[in-house]
Amino acid sequence: MVRAFDEEEKRWALEALGGLIRIPSVSAQGTGIGEAARYLRDLFRQIGLDARVLETGGNPVVFAERDVGAGRTILFYNHYDVQPPEPLELWSSPPFEPTVREGRIYGRGAYDNKGNIIARALAVKALNEPPVNVRFLVEGEEEVGSKNLPRFVEEHGDLLEADLCIWESGSRDEAGRLQIDLGCKGILALELHARGPKADLHSSLSPIVPNPAWRLAWALASMKGGGEEIKVEGFYDGVLEPTEEELEYLARIPFDERGRLERYGLEEFLRGARGAEVLRKLYYSPAMNISGIGAGYQGEGSKTVLPSVAMAKLDVRLVPEQRPDKVLGAIERHLQRGGFWDIELRCTEGYPAGRTPMDNPYVGLVAGAAGEVYGGAVIHPTSAGSGPIYLFTKRMPCISAGVGHAGSNAHAPDESIYVENLFLGAGHMALVMERLGEATSPSGRTPPGP
Amino acid sequence: MVRAFDEEEKRWALEALGGLIRIPSVSAQGTGIGEAARYLRDLFRQIGLDARVLETGGNPVVFAERDVGAGRTILFYNHYDVQPPEPLELWSSPPFEPTVREGRIYGRGAYDNKGNIIARALAVKALNEPPVNVRFLVEGEEEVGSKNLPRFVEEHGDLLEADLCIWESGSRDEAGRLQIDLGCKGILALELHARGPKADLHSSLSPIVPNPAWRLAWALASMKGGGEEIKVEGFYDGVLEPTEEELEYLARIPFDERGRLERYGLEEFLRGARGAEVLRKLYYSPAMNISGIGAGYQGEGSKTVLPSVAMAKLDVRLVPEQRPDKVLGAIERHLQRGGFWDIELRCTEGYPAGRTPMDNPYVGLVAGAAGEVYGGAVIHPTSAGSGPIYLFTKRMPCISAGVGHAGSNAHAPDESIYVENLFLGAGHMALVMERLGEATSPSGRTPPGP
Repeated sequence: MVRAFDEEEKRWALEALGGLIRIPSVSAQGTGIGEAARYLRDLFRQIGLDARVLETGGNPVVFAERDVGAGRTILFYNHYDVQPPEPLELWSSPPFEPTVREGRIYGRGAYDNKGNIIARALAVKALNEPPVNVRFLVEGEEEVGSKNLPRFVEEHGDLLEADLCIWESGSRDEAGRLQIDLGCKGILALELHARGPKADLHSSLSPIVPNPAWRLAWALASMKGGGEEIKVEGFYDGVLEPTEEELEYLARIPFDERGRLERYGLEEFLRGARGAEVLRKLYYSPAMNISGIGAGYQGEGSKTVLPSVAMAKLDVRLVPEQRPDKVLGAIERHLQRGGFWDIELRCTEGYPAGRTPMDNPYVGLVAGAAGEVYGGAVIHPTSAGSGPIYLFTKRMPCISAGVGHAGSNAHAPDESIYVENLFLGAGHMALVMERLGEATSPSGRTPPGP
Repeated sequence: MVRAFDEEEKRWALEALGGLIRIPSVSAQGTGIGEAARYLRDLFRQIGLDARVLETGGNPVVFAERDVGAGRTILFYNHYDVQPPEPLELWSSPPFEPTVREGRIYGRGAYDNKGNIIARALAVKALNEPPVNVRFLVEGEEEVGSKNLPRFVEEHGDLLEADLCIWESGSRDEAGRLQIDLGCKGILALELHARGPKADLHSSLSPIVPNPAWRLAWALASMKGGGEEIKVEGFYDGVLEPTEEELEYLARIPFDERGRLERYGLEEFLRGARGAEVLRKLYYSPAMNISGIGAGYQGEGSKTVLPSVAMAKLDVRLVPEQRPDKVLGAIERHLQRGGFWDIELRCTEGYPAGRTPMDNPYVGLVAGAAGEVYGGAVIHPTSAGSGPIYLFTKRMPCISAGVGHAGSNAHAPDESIYVENLFLGAGHMALVMERLGEATSPSGRTPPGP
């Protein structure tokens, strides 16, 4: 039965979320970090958990647990840091002043990831005596690459043992169904810096002076061709192609092709992909994206300059079983072999993909509970985005289930969640914990199949 | 005999130049245009010329003339507009406050092109009764592409008839010799605008959404290859290769290879060019330069964005007999054939190259006079830069001879000329006019050979 929260519980959750949004814990800008960590520690203590702020060398982790002596343990992975709020002028209300309008709570982090933290905390609070052991890992560097998390996980592995990890995210789709993702892609964030003359020169010298913007254009075009094929030798090594079964499953996932194209302002998807091919590329293809490029004069009119430097930023999205270090090495060798000795390659972030198999029995448990709460759930084999989920999928199934909706605007102005989804999400989590507890009860009931 | 100016003449020239520098006639920013034109009109009247401000549809032209009934006419081409003074913080004294330090006059336009105007005016003033008819064409849009000059020249061709045109520029080299250029390259200033999704998207969508920065990199790489070869079909049509004689001449031009490399901070010139090959490329090769490129996030750290738009600015340097309209058409066809329908090509400026043949007898006249004044002159077949000289080389020989030096910093902070060069330049121009007058005197003396 889906739990209905009483007024006190609802008020508690809304106040807890409001207080958390008010703390501008922007990891990229180094604000509000300690305050947010202490706020969460105190919040977890308030609902009966043993909570600590643990140092990582970077932004601290908030760890909270309650061991009820149950046979099963659930781990919630979340993060208290948020994306920068800029551009501020596009917000309808200030990003760090939580505001309720037409049933939605607006504010930076309302969905990503503070709303999810509070929904889970509300579930634990409402259960009073939870049927499973509960653990929270709330990190503070997710939005800047989780650089200190691998070492933290290695050093505190015992704290993180669990049967099931509920991942940070999850949203209802346009039809109201919960989208459940079973993994994340990996990422390599790269910068290419090309150098030419020691200062900008008059471009009349271009017949005799190397131009770093041309060098960069050639390097980039050598890495990926016009057919989107990545030409770096060894790049695709280890890539797991989807199985027949997975492809058949993809074809059954509801996907509003025309709606998406309209939202992006496109005539068609890349290389004319249609139908299940779109999701196959989105979930099973590695990709190399130019997120930024810059050189010379970019203002109005013309300036006849030969630039001294040129820069490009790439994010490479990795799929199982690509290894970031190997891919980085392959790109380095590619640039060397291509004679691009004047281009410096810097890696600012890197971790592999991680996925939970679709046939893991806990997938069905979480999806089944979502079906009861939301009237429907759609399981996606992975998110197209990246996150450090590989640290956990090695140890336990990781399944996303959260309080967002199709217009939640994560990372964008006017981020929001529906108040209703905050409570439905908490109800879903409470039901998952109950089912997980039943799965190990003396009745010997096993988790449902997928 | 080289003319020595008296104190009154020198004071007049310095005050005239100072007053002109004080007018911030920045065409790109639309300041001081009318004021500079009127200032020059009055200055020319002061020295006995018939001077008018003529409308062009854009910034006006100052035209001044004195017809003494001589058999020969000299035309001075100059411009009163200057480059923007930015970056202001790199100036040692304010750009529009002319300042004399250690024998130099500092200020925006001190060399380009106000110093040259005043040197020529001083020569006319000092000659009192010049031996040739004198004409000045001083335009106000040279620094922004001389867009209205072609029509002006067409409509006022009769005003511009002359036997010899002295072009705006010219500098002394490191050894003190006057560098005399006989032409300019043409130019095509282009912008490429690539469009992807209607707004920036999260880069996790890169497997299914086209990225305009990639499209731009591929388009650019398709236009010019890593060996610097321009791959646009028809681009090289009409290019005049240098003759054996011209190549031999190039090899004799003094060129401080190591000094140049050091100044640019390079190990070697582009593609390892050495010796006469450097000047051959600089003067006889067309070129395609990326002067600016921009897309996506260019700040610190990473932002996983798939940009909506990407932009590149190119300047294409043309040599005789390339035609800008044909080259533009070739580039358009190249992009169409390559499938780059998502890239918009804009042309913001375009005109062809123009040159005076090295064996034109007036070249020797101007160079010979420079030899007497400066102790040496080096004739270069063209400048590597661009200017609307083609409008005049069609009608008469055009030869540059000016008051700059190797460190004059045209277009850059701390632009300056040596006071001494202002007077030597005026002396040179007076001698050129005298020789030009002699060339048609009853003695029947012909101009000296090259």
